[in-house]
Amino acid sequence: MDVIEIIDKKRLKQELSYEEIKYIFEGFLNDEVEDYQMSSLLMAIVLNGMTDEEIFALTDIFINSGDVLDLSNIDGVKVDKHSTGGIGDKTTLIVAPIVASLGVKICKMSGRGLGYTGGTIDKLESIPGFRVSLSEEEVIRQLNDIGIAITSQTKNLVPLDKKVYALRDVTATVESIPLIASSIMSKKIASGADKILIDIKVGSGALIKNERDAKHLSDLMIKIGKKYNREVRTLITDMNTPLGKAIGNSLEVVEVASILRGHGKDTYLFEVCVELASNLVSMALNNSLEDAKKMVLENINNGQAYKKFVEFVKRQGGSLNDLRVSNKSRVVRSDKSGIIKNIDALKIGMLSASLGSQLEKQGDKVDYTVGVVLHKKIGDIVNYGDSLCTIYIGDKPYRNPLDAFTIEEFNS
Amino acid sequence: MDVIEIIDKKRLKQELSYEEIKYIFEGFLNDEVEDYQMSSLLMAIVLNGMTDEEIFALTDIFINSGDVLDLSNIDGVKVDKHSTGGIGDKTTLIVAPIVASLGVKICKMSGRGLGYTGGTIDKLESIPGFRVSLSEEEVIRQLNDIGIAITSQTKNLVPLDKKVYALRDVTATVESIPLIASSIMSKKIASGADKILIDIKVGSGALIKNERDAKHLSDLMIKIGKKYNREVRTLITDMNTPLGKAIGNSLEVVEVASILRGHGKDTYLFEVCVELASNLVSMALNNSLEDAKKMVLENINNGQAYKKFVEFVKRQGGSLNDLRVSNKSRVVRSDKSGIIKNIDALKIGMLSASLGSQLEKQGDKVDYTVGVVLHKKIGDIVNYGDSLCTIYIGDKPYRNPLDAFTIEEFNS
Repeated sequence: MDVIEIIDKKRLKQELSYEEIKYIFEGFLNDEVEDYQMSSLLMAIVLNGMTDEEIFALTDIFINSGDVLDLSNIDGVKVDKHSTGGIGDKTTLIVAPIVASLGVKICKMSGRGLGYTGGTIDKLESIPGFRVSLSEEEVIRQLNDIGIAITSQTKNLVPLDKKVYALRDVTATVESIPLIASSIMSKKIASGADKILIDIKVGSGALIKNERDAKHLSDLMIKIGKKYNREVRTLITDMNTPLGKAIGNSLEVVEVASILRGHGKDTYLFEVCVELASNLVSMALNNSLEDAKKMVLENINNGQAYKKFVEFVKRQGGSLNDLRVSNKSRVVRSDKSGIIKNIDALKIGMLSASLGSQLEKQGDKVDYTVGVVLHKKIGDIVNYGDSLCTIYIGDKPYRNPLDAFTIEEFNS
Repeated sequence: MDVIEIIDKKRLKQELSYEEIKYIFEGFLNDEVEDYQMSSLLMAIVLNGMTDEEIFALTDIFINSGDVLDLSNIDGVKVDKHSTGGIGDKTTLIVAPIVASLGVKICKMSGRGLGYTGGTIDKLESIPGFRVSLSEEEVIRQLNDIGIAITSQTKNLVPLDKKVYALRDVTATVESIPLIASSIMSKKIASGADKILIDIKVGSGALIKNERDAKHLSDLMIKIGKKYNREVRTLITDMNTPLGKAIGNSLEVVEVASILRGHGKDTYLFEVCVELASNLVSMALNNSLEDAKKMVLENINNGQAYKKFVEFVKRQGGSLNDLRVSNKSRVVRSDKSGIIKNIDALKIGMLSASLGSQLEKQGDKVDYTVGVVLHKKIGDIVNYGDSLCTIYIGDKPYRNPLDAFTIEEFNS
């Protein structure tokens, strides 16, 4: 086989065989195929797409590139939950304790944030003492003991995806539904859960910009799940505006605790978390979504969900009492009176990232205490001088995020 | 400016500005933009195309990346001729002496063959003693003295194109009309001629596979010429079957001499050469194509064209008497009786390349004495056992090229 011929086939929109995909991607992992050849192929894939068979092949080659986690020593159904990522998305930290409090075992390997979308691991690390790296044995023991574990990768899972993703990140080849589907599903399948819920975020603050792409991604992920006998459900949720009020690591943990204690029940964040938790419970217990939802709400109201969160943090060494946010803050005030028509998630996310809340590139250092807290939501009325948000700042310069808020003025 | 954003714009089929194209391509030349980013952009260009303005910008950036040749010290109109390349294409060696014999100054910088399309420089080097590297001063003196010079590059012309082309070659991004147009035209403009004739080869043995692409390329090159005040004419000629009988360096020089001495007047090669020469003469002398053609035929018939060829070879140090072809040869015979419907240029070209007639990759050594001589042309009747071609072989193994000949059998 010849690498240039394989790229050329994809350029001509011809279907690649399993063997051809294996040859070029495994060659890339083994440094036998050059970066510049892989990026040329990736751009051809982004623009010419992949057939279902090609996507199944790539997913399989991704999975086989590394270790696969064996969760068979854990009793009961194991669920996993994944979000395609968005600004202020702290749903994992809310949903996981809820379902665990209902006896559903949830094991989640999470990543760090990169660019402007946050990472669950960074958020957990903002809790002093919290250990994000568990061994495989620790994960299994913890799941059997308290039903919940969130860790950075324990094993060498899907190293090929890691290498491909790093290249996609710097070659403008991230936005491809087939590549996103293969990347996510290979990691979910290698992580060993029986049932998988995917939260597909759509909007300006998300990787997926429109409903049509979200539907396409959903279909692909369900199909891939079938191939590996994993039940996959998907939810398509909005990410045009930040999810919740807090953006930034320790600020988000504060919001997580607040939601789990039953505050903010009228918020979209609460609604999304209940929806996600109900789906996971209904998948695991094979009951109706309605029944699952009742159970979820009950365990929030009776404090069991929050109790599980505290237990989980403590078990992994964290001390919630020591959580800190920056003591330097600035209030951003409205320069007009009117109705808030939009809050741009991407701009808020980029502001928070620029303050230091996550890595903009590998090698940066995260400042866990910085971020943004929104005081208004879309549809709220504001008067001139009202506070729109508070920025918690650290050592880095900040810019006023007033342009993230679209305010329709009253007729004067 | 940001490299990833520029690639992303092209991925989304948005027009890049002059400054953006300059930023990423000059960055690539200066090793500030990575190979894998450039190849991703190149694949996006191949698949999403370029606007005319983008093509003008890229051509300009190519030209400005290196030296520009100044031919103003040479009297009269200077013409240049370029072929997009094909199997057995020795037209430059025939056309240049014809037009020079008519007082039209022709200065041509040629390249080596790579892959399966031959290079004029390799063909000239097969003549013992021939010097392919002239200094700029030598070129100017020679043009003033005898009106013809063919040399490898004298200066650092368009180094950016060289670097981009090397990457395109290994990333399946060669076949792009905008990139081909910018690449050829930047070199032609930097080479300094006033009037430029481009022979666009179309067919299985050429880079351009169909008439529509050829027309597109022709339009682009004429437009680019206008931008720089250069008269550009194009001819679209067939390259489905090898051009002429000989393929391979010294074998082709023998055929060149034969055509210039007036043999093979019924061949397509002769017809193409007369057409090219007539266009160059008519451009230079501002006369009608008909008048120019009469002059061309006259100078072939009266021996002036061949005389100029001999003068040119001698002036650059070559000795035609010492030209050698391999003394090891094999005759390939037909395995059926019928009519030749096709001779596959690509297969013949690849056979000749595999025998050693040109570089398959950088670092190979050329065997000037090997190649193929066809004994039949399309439409010829052959009987079982008739010789189809002779292969001149060297040290490398050869394969029987019978499958390059499509022979329709007589009804038996």
